[in-house]
Amino acid sequence: MAGRKIGLGELTSLDYEGIARALTNFIRGVVREAGARGVVVGVSGGVDSATTLALAARALGPERVLALLLPDSEVTPRGDVEDARELVESLGVRYKVIDIRPVVRSFLEATGEKPDRRSLGNLRARARMAILYLYANMQGLLVAGTGDRSEILIGYFTKYGDGAVDFLPIGSLYKTQVRRLALHLGVPESIALKPSSPRLWPGHLAEEELGMKYEEIDLALYALFDLGLGVEEAAEATGLPREKLEKVLDMHRASEHKRRLPPAPDPGDTVWRFRRR
Amino acid sequence: MAGRKIGLGELTSLDYEGIARALTNFIRGVVREAGARGVVVGVSGGVDSATTLALAARALGPERVLALLLPDSEVTPRGDVEDARELVESLGVRYKVIDIRPVVRSFLEATGEKPDRRSLGNLRARARMAILYLYANMQGLLVAGTGDRSEILIGYFTKYGDGAVDFLPIGSLYKTQVRRLALHLGVPESIALKPSSPRLWPGHLAEEELGMKYEEIDLALYALFDLGLGVEEAAEATGLPREKLEKVLDMHRASEHKRRLPPAPDPGDTVWRFRRR
Repeated sequence: MAGRKIGLGELTSLDYEGIARALTNFIRGVVREAGARGVVVGVSGGVDSATTLALAARALGPERVLALLLPDSEVTPRGDVEDARELVESLGVRYKVIDIRPVVRSFLEATGEKPDRRSLGNLRARARMAILYLYANMQGLLVAGTGDRSEILIGYFTKYGDGAVDFLPIGSLYKTQVRRLALHLGVPESIALKPSSPRLWPGHLAEEELGMKYEEIDLALYALFDLGLGVEEAAEATGLPREKLEKVLDMHRASEHKRRLPPAPDPGDTVWRFRRR
Repeated sequence: MAGRKIGLGELTSLDYEGIARALTNFIRGVVREAGARGVVVGVSGGVDSATTLALAARALGPERVLALLLPDSEVTPRGDVEDARELVESLGVRYKVIDIRPVVRSFLEATGEKPDRRSLGNLRARARMAILYLYANMQGLLVAGTGDRSEILIGYFTKYGDGAVDFLPIGSLYKTQVRRLALHLGVPESIALKPSSPRLWPGHLAEEELGMKYEEIDLALYALFDLGLGVEEAAEATGLPREKLEKVLDMHRASEHKRRLPPAPDPGDTVWRFRRR
């Protein structure tokens, strides 16, 4: 391994048609096993949801896919909604556009609170989740998550918001791989190459908040998690500064609780130990 | 094992003070490890949330516990709110009462839908979750879940609603054990012995919906999960009819998806197999 150099091409030079087939099989299998009628996808105008939607439409046929466009009229750039609408129309899936602004406002009025930017952003993500599941429950659909492997590993999602889904069709793909799969599937470049953003507040951009580009994050994750390198070796192999690798590891560790089930006490230790004889 | 008879006393004759100590240790440990300031608990007027709240107040001190009473004025019996208010006042924890009715209505207006009873009930649970996490995020608190082991094992909770929490202080206790622990902790009988209900619609009662009493469900779960008996042996040992044991097992299996993380494809099979050389 010593002296080996890793570049982004090692992650992204893939047979995307083979991947598309594997992922559509995954989607069909999950939907069949659950006995669901189809899936619902929240479509933002970004690359992850566009790719998830395109895969779902290919896997199940557009008639078994419901797309929900859930902008917040005070935050979501108009271009996102237009991009999302063009996409759903070109794929021929059923869709609805629902402005979540009045819903968000009702939470603020009911509580009388003025949350900080991040708490409010997380509230938006959770309001969207509740709408996706309302349709899933009413129509017998699964909620297809739109999280990618980069976001999942660094915990860049809202717990019980966009992270609250029934399955994760693109959960095995890094962001840089998703972009290329999107282009392969015919997702327009305006979406496939758009800078990532959870749009939790106006002007919110992922790479600004994270302080790293996804090309760097993905290379770091690949070196650390797929190749199992330590920070030193990974820095040497990728050419990334040590601090960036540490930062990626820190984000992973700090978000551990988002990737596990809520812990409960062990019945052996906390109940059965206390039997009266 | 043959011929052995199991009665409810085998589950419920416990040293509840010992259990209370073990669970308060658990709470302190989780809060400390997360670096949180305390916990927020949604308090319904039922036994599970009362017990969770009483344990949290004992573990952390009442000043580090926020209780949220989140009735839906069209569904929640007035007596529940009164019971909950008495409880939080007697424990001396901080609390707020927030009627979720306008929030629920805003979801219905934004979507233009008239959901069936169950979908609407799940929406209520998810709206409550979003409010609990709004306060958790704003104040640096963990959301203490109020689910008990009976509900968790049979999947009797709303996925990403009341099931969406940071940890489960009473998750190792069956419902019949929670009632006894509640009495031990000084929770009033009006709460500790109140018939269980998720109150997802008017008149909603758990044991009616489930078609079994919790005494039966817990005995069945204990025989099947703690003692590891098969259905035949469990029926013989507990005296419960076979059909009730089958029903409990069916509920467990059908709710498997609520007790696991959302499945994602394996990167090995769906990405790395498709490297271009």
